Amino acid sequence: MQLGVIGLGRMGRIVADRALDAGHEVVAFDVDAEAVAAVADAGADPAGSLADFVEQLGTEKRIWLMVPAGDAIDAALADLEPHLDDEDVVVDGGNSHFEDSTRRAETTPAAYLDCGTSGGPASAEAGFSLMIGGPEWAYDELTPVFDAVATGPAGHARMGPAGSGHYVKMVHNGVEYALMEAYGEGFELLSDGRYDLDLESVARTWNNGAVIRSWLLELCEEAFAEEGSDLGTVADRVEGGSTGTWTVQEALSQEVPVPLIYTALAERFGSRAANGRFARRLANRLRYGFGRHEVARSE
Amino acid sequence: MQLGVIGLGRMGRIVADRALDAGHEVVAFDVDAEAVAAVADAGADPAGSLADFVEQLGTEKRIWLMVPAGDAIDAALADLEPHLDDEDVVVDGGNSHFEDSTRRAETTPAAYLDCGTSGGPASAEAGFSLMIGGPEWAYDELTPVFDAVATGPAGHARMGPAGSGHYVKMVHNGVEYALMEAYGEGFELLSDGRYDLDLESVARTWNNGAVIRSWLLELCEEAFAEEGSDLGTVADRVEGGSTGTWTVQEALSQEVPVPLIYTALAERFGSRAANGRFARRLANRLRYGFGRHEVARSE
Amino acid sequence: MQLGVIGLGRMGRIVADRALDAGHEVVAFDVDAEAVAAVADAGADPAGSLADFVEQLGTEKRIWLMVPAGDAIDAALADLEPHLDDEDVVVDGGNSHFEDSTRRAETTPAAYLDCGTSGGPASAEAGFSLMIGGPEWAYDELTPVFDAVATGPAGHARMGPAGSGHYVKMVHNGVEYALMEAYGEGFELLSDGRYDLDLESVARTWNNGAVIRSWLLELCEEAFAEEGSDLGTVADRVEGGSTGTWTVQEALSQEVPVPLIYTALAERFGSRAANGRFARRLANRLRYGFGRHEVARSE
Amino acid sequence: MQLGVIGLGRMGRIVADRALDAGHEVVAFDVDAEAVAAVADAGADPAGSLADFVEQLGTEKRIWLMVPAGDAIDAALADLEPHLDDEDVVVDGGNSHFEDSTRRAETTPAAYLDCGTSGGPASAEAGFSLMIGGPEWAYDELTPVFDAVATGPAGHARMGPAGSGHYVKMVHNGVEYALMEAYGEGFELLSDGRYDLDLESVARTWNNGAVIRSWLLELCEEAFAEEGSDLGTVADRVEGGSTGTWTVQEALSQEVPVPLIYTALAERFGSRAANGRFARRLANRLRYGFGRHEVARSE
Repeated sequence: MQLGVIGLGRMGRIVADRALDAGHEVVAFDVDAEAVAAVADAGADPAGSLADFVEQLGTEKRIWLMVPAGDAIDAALADLEPHLDDEDVVVDGGNSHFEDSTRRAETTPAAYLDCGTSGGPASAEAGFSLMIGGPEWAYDELTPVFDAVATGPAGHARMGPAGSGHYVKMVHNGVEYALMEAYGEGFELLSDGRYDLDLESVARTWNNGAVIRSWLLELCEEAFAEEGSDLGTVADRVEGGSTGTWTVQEALSQEVPVPLIYTALAERFGSRAANGRFARRLANRLRYGFGRHEVARSE
Repeated sequence: MQLGVIGLGRMGRIVADRALDAGHEVVAFDVDAEAVAAVADAGADPAGSLADFVEQLGTEKRIWLMVPAGDAIDAALADLEPHLDDEDVVVDGGNSHFEDSTRRAETTPAAYLDCGTSGGPASAEAGFSLMIGGPEWAYDELTPVFDAVATGPAGHARMGPAGSGHYVKMVHNGVEYALMEAYGEGFELLSDGRYDLDLESVARTWNNGAVIRSWLLELCEEAFAEEGSDLGTVADRVEGGSTGTWTVQEALSQEVPVPLIYTALAERFGSRAANGRFARRLANRLRYGFGRHEVARSE
Repeated sequence: MQLGVIGLGRMGRIVADRALDAGHEVVAFDVDAEAVAAVADAGADPAGSLADFVEQLGTEKRIWLMVPAGDAIDAALADLEPHLDDEDVVVDGGNSHFEDSTRRAETTPAAYLDCGTSGGPASAEAGFSLMIGGPEWAYDELTPVFDAVATGPAGHARMGPAGSGHYVKMVHNGVEYALMEAYGEGFELLSDGRYDLDLESVARTWNNGAVIRSWLLELCEEAFAEEGSDLGTVADRVEGGSTGTWTVQEALSQEVPVPLIYTALAERFGSRAANGRFARRLANRLRYGFGRHEVARSE
Repeated sequence: MQLGVIGLGRMGRIVADRALDAGHEVVAFDVDAEAVAAVADAGADPAGSLADFVEQLGTEKRIWLMVPAGDAIDAALADLEPHLDDEDVVVDGGNSHFEDSTRRAETTPAAYLDCGTSGGPASAEAGFSLMIGGPEWAYDELTPVFDAVATGPAGHARMGPAGSGHYVKMVHNGVEYALMEAYGEGFELLSDGRYDLDLESVARTWNNGAVIRSWLLELCEEAFAEEGSDLGTVADRVEGGSTGTWTVQEALSQEVPVPLIYTALAERFGSRAANGRFARRLANRLRYGFGRHEVARSE
């Protein structure tokens, strides 16, 4: 089938490449002309403008948007809007908040599929995991492309109506935060504990048969191989946090306890506290207040 | 090589079978004569008594103990002690506290290898992950057997001196508690959230390419397949907790924060509170105390 | 001075009574005519309608709104709006979200003071603690009334501009959740621990000189006195949670870690889970998955 | 009555002074002769040696030990042992682990009262809170002294048999950790939040009538008064932790969830991590692993 791809960054390029590899026809557009030329070399039909792009797609357009979350998606949809009707399908492969996706599904003239995408750039050879929300007919229609991008039918599924794809992806990311922190606690204890351990060897042994084996643990193994058991110069600072924040906000509104996800998120916040944790500074001072314990002071 | 196996429960039987499959000679003993007869049918040399067992092994004995943790190990070691010397090797494959293993290593006349074993009965076809502590020569000597039981060299490693094998296994289990709870929080939110989701489908999609894919997530997928997305009659009660408790105790003594592991363990305790959580009952009552909010009462 | 009070529930009645006791003139209105009559018996000037109320106040009106949070406040402000100008002052003593208060401050023709009120109905004899946001001149103007309601100058202060009063009250409540849970954990351990303890006696001993003495601990003492050390029929179910939820939401948006406040809030959610905690049910099932441990089933 | 006091540090001196103030006769001993001379100036009978001390006490000795926890107590008890019989009473006012106290109660020839003491040096004018374990007759016998040290009957009580006094004190301290952290979280949010707040004023307003008013909050107020709303040079480093650790260990052995107490304790550990939190450093590195996010590096 014919697939239009808008957005040819790392992720969009993988989408185009896999569709091409699976024998689909790809029309590709990006504001960066070099990115368009590169994917044209790989066999895609280049589009020099959005007008050219929609022209090449004809009727019953199938379009995969792989642009950053936020305003870029709304801008792309606004540009596309005059050219879309209810026989067209737009896949939004970005990392949007599910409420934005629900809104976009309502306002876009085409069928709108919100597609949570996991696996990341590092999964170039493995297929992505695609969590998809939206109309069933549109999902069915795009299935050949999803098979290609997920490298098989098991790696994608329709979760439910509009928004559900990005909803499931949001929760996926919340769990991801907690898993990373859980492994981190284990390795921290091994690192500071009684034995002088080779953490790469620990991770490899676990990855071969242990209950806790996983892809994240393989990434731990790789990290220790590259940085050493003490993680070298890797800093105690964890960036990011938006999808984890969304997850906790949603759990608050559903009144579902998620203490591990919350704690993992809060650790990120704590790692970025400019002057240390105020709560701990106050506890330091209070110990003087009631027990006359010496107050530790910064320079 | 020749390996003596004491303890032919589910785990010990797997050890014997894999050693036999790899072409090793196995002398097998258990207090349960039927278990001995069954493994003899599979090709092992049966021992009718401990005396018979040590007799068949001759000098330079290599013995794998696969008996439950605790007194059973000390009893087995006491029985073996008169027959052991420093050219012999005993592998303790049970789930012991590392301090017990350190003590046993000091008091056993043979070289003592503490061998943390993960993978569980469900991993019968996959190899176990073996985390081993003790003298290097003894580990090297047993390597052909470890290759067989782990189904390959990547699934076992010497972690360090006596106790380190069970130490690493203890931390493994602490991490395991937290991983289970992290997935549980994610699925709880999906289960109680905005969409009516097929959790088996979610888990399968994640297991095929997502960042959080893992063996535990495959077990989640299997659980939802068998129990349904609502987990049917599965009760809110989590048994076990000893290795998680050991992990937290050790983290306390090393002053390493493990809030996720702790919380996962505490959730197990909470699930077993006979009359509900006292802390929550008090909070219920205090809300009346300061705000005259109605007190919820049990029957 | 003259003070108009709208809303004569438990809290509003206390405001009126204390203003009267301090020698102020009080004009009182409520949709419940009996409540108006009762406070008139106590010395207030009754208002039969809102029109009558504003008529009696004349110019430079000073009005204390003590109606439930939410739509009731907007309705009262809408009714008042035609009668207000920038020389008037409205105190909103309800428990509103600070963003609603900020909005109301912008849209109300009068000066608007958001007044977080703590102490609760149980503090009838002690003064309330009043956390006030809004224009400094309006705060100064109302100070005689705040002195009366707080029973002294130390119990009220201007926190900052519009919204800051309800902001500080929101955080107060978040801390309150955590304090209750902290005491609860201590008493739970004492209750389930090694000794058969009289918890009222423990609480009383602590309240007389110990570092952790507090008003909440006095309420614990009272609760054990009335319910017994086992809390009798008090159920494991904690209602409420909106201000705690606001606090965590705000902490998420400010990226400030509040793990104790979060955990205390999540315990409330957990206490209300209709079919138990899904996360724990899944952990129960997963233990079968990897270890063939028996699954606990509900009836 | 006559009371012997061993140990004339800050706390022991307060015990001696209050007993003297209440009209009791005090025989005082310390290895520091200057401390003995000082309390003699205040009216106590000085003892130049332990032999002199026991000589002055005669039969039916009542002795208050106020020496640091640990070996010092065992050493003092060993010195006293030849002079004690079952008509004597020893009060151990130190901060011992309850299991040590239980052991000491069994091995000391005299009746042994373990006396958890809260209030700290800062409570010199207020009475201490005394949580006492041991034989009822001995508690009754010492009641006049407890009245003096607690400045009233409400500040002391017999909790139960040997060990229960230090047990209740241990739990008190665990709760104390959580309360400090709970206030700390609230003030951290206020400090980093939307408004520029005077935290001393916030604390004072809360202390005058709010639900969360407490002695610890008074100490917060004092801290902000002395250090400013930003806590000046007070460092993000919290020392101590032994009694909190004991509390969590006991909660583990009783299978009682104490997530707030645990988290408060873990925050102390985290504040002392020499090279940052390893778990967070690993999370930082893993984000590169799956998402090619840039790794923050230390110098």
